[in-house]
Amino acid sequence: MLFQVLDYLSVLVFALTGALVASRAQLDVVGFAFFAALTGVGGGTLRDVLLDRNPVFWIADPWYLAVAAGAAVAVFFFAHRLESRYDALQWLDAAALAVAVSAGSGIAASLGEPWPIVVVMGMVTGCMGGLTRDVVANEVPMVLRQGELYVTCAFAGSCVTAALDVFPAALAALACAATVFGLRAGSLALGWRLPVYKAQPKRRE
Amino acid sequence: MLFQVLDYLSVLVFALTGALVASRAQLDVVGFAFFAALTGVGGGTLRDVLLDRNPVFWIADPWYLAVAAGAAVAVFFFAHRLESRYDALQWLDAAALAVAVSAGSGIAASLGEPWPIVVVMGMVTGCMGGLTRDVVANEVPMVLRQGELYVTCAFAGSCVTAALDVFPAALAALACAATVFGLRAGSLALGWRLPVYKAQPKRRE
Amino acid sequence: MLFQVLDYLSVLVFALTGALVASRAQLDVVGFAFFAALTGVGGGTLRDVLLDRNPVFWIADPWYLAVAAGAAVAVFFFAHRLESRYDALQWLDAAALAVAVSAGSGIAASLGEPWPIVVVMGMVTGCMGGLTRDVVANEVPMVLRQGELYVTCAFAGSCVTAALDVFPAALAALACAATVFGLRAGSLALGWRLPVYKAQPKRRE
Repeated sequence: MLFQVLDYLSVLVFALTGALVASRAQLDVVGFAFFAALTGVGGGTLRDVLLDRNPVFWIADPWYLAVAAGAAVAVFFFAHRLESRYDALQWLDAAALAVAVSAGSGIAASLGEPWPIVVVMGMVTGCMGGLTRDVVANEVPMVLRQGELYVTCAFAGSCVTAALDVFPAALAALACAATVFGLRAGSLALGWRLPVYKAQPKRRE
Repeated sequence: MLFQVLDYLSVLVFALTGALVASRAQLDVVGFAFFAALTGVGGGTLRDVLLDRNPVFWIADPWYLAVAAGAAVAVFFFAHRLESRYDALQWLDAAALAVAVSAGSGIAASLGEPWPIVVVMGMVTGCMGGLTRDVVANEVPMVLRQGELYVTCAFAGSCVTAALDVFPAALAALACAATVFGLRAGSLALGWRLPVYKAQPKRRE
Repeated sequence: MLFQVLDYLSVLVFALTGALVASRAQLDVVGFAFFAALTGVGGGTLRDVLLDRNPVFWIADPWYLAVAAGAAVAVFFFAHRLESRYDALQWLDAAALAVAVSAGSGIAASLGEPWPIVVVMGMVTGCMGGLTRDVVANEVPMVLRQGELYVTCAFAGSCVTAALDVFPAALAALACAATVFGLRAGSLALGWRLPVYKAQPKRRE
């Protein structure tokens, strides 16, 4: 029940980001719905396929698709009211990441998976929908942004879920989502970052 | 039986488009076969994995791979005779889309899936092979083309299959393929389109 | 046992290539681990999903992830000592390809799959991890390099495994890996190649 709510929320918010990317590519409303659904259910689908959960969550309950389609229609008609679609995209993506990492790591933990799998499933569920969105839309994937925390936020949040395994699932989910969003917000607003690899590259391409 | 024929036809025609893309990238004959197989079986493979059909159709019957390889060899030796490889690519892709949407939505319907899943499986089977081809080959994905109907054709055709569920499968498949190809041809030849999202974008990148 | 060793080795070497790509994109250490894991387990994961092997190899044994993470950390701290990261990337990728094709085709053969599936699984396991790495990192995929043998090496090696099916698995694996690496090394160092498709392209884009 908790994870269903988290999955719904994550589909909704990721779908909004997918539709915003579609608006940057100036697609029609069906294109918006395509990107919304791809982004919304992408990460959770990979999680379910890897964990062999059958049927995949949105095949078991097609209302997830309705949520994604609804988000797409809303963005199609109202995105022009946003002052900066790009800012909206970044912050919505941060919120979606937080919820999806929560849902992904929580589901793996509830299945009794060992902690490395809990961590990876949080990262897969959180990152893969947005990654697919960016690769298909030919945008620079958010995971590749230099000097920003992104995968690191998903990793930290998933570790929180794994560490709080003995506590009630709702508490772990909340702490995980707060960790992910807090780190990502700190990175976007305050420039938090980890040291990056630097070299005098002798590239040959 | 009907769906096997449709799957064979869709693998063949998508494989031709994959090999044409390989010819644009000037690969060798094994590279042609790789792109032909990737494009030919990509969409149906994703459909089978999502629906948990075991084994995947081309593992159950490797002749699908032979069809894709044959298409690749044919394109490798005869593509230079085409007046415009790009036109050929577009129109073959339209035909492949029509057949693949038919096969994908029809198989989902024959498994008794509810209509939203029928619609999505038609779109997945139709669009994902070509999408993978374009992403791997670094071409602009056909789903992203502005002012063209593409995903919309797959969506409309899948809805036709879902709506004609009570009729014989062959009839539904024919109506679906005709809808997809008709819309796509209208878009390519006559410029049919849906209104697209327009804004005064304040992009920051 | 043999295939487990091959899988470990292929994860390790592919993870090194993934981390090198991360170093070219100047990511932080978690980004290195993300690319290392994506590249290291990508091909084998697709193989396991397609063959419906449950659970996927790195979910059954999360030490694979530790190997990938360790490779990422090592590259993060020591890559600047390399004279040419790009040369290292190419040759490590060649080694990883050899081992992964061996593992992929060998596992399919040991499951009693017919020879076309053995060949395809060798190619999938060998090529798909590196392909995902390159697509996500926005580099030109190695499968697309003109005038180089790449997919062809994987194809030849997989055929060797299929042909030596009656011999002990270790012998077939060795012959396969030697074939792949020998062809790829010949292509990188001596310029071996197959004739490529040439045309007077009339591109319209």
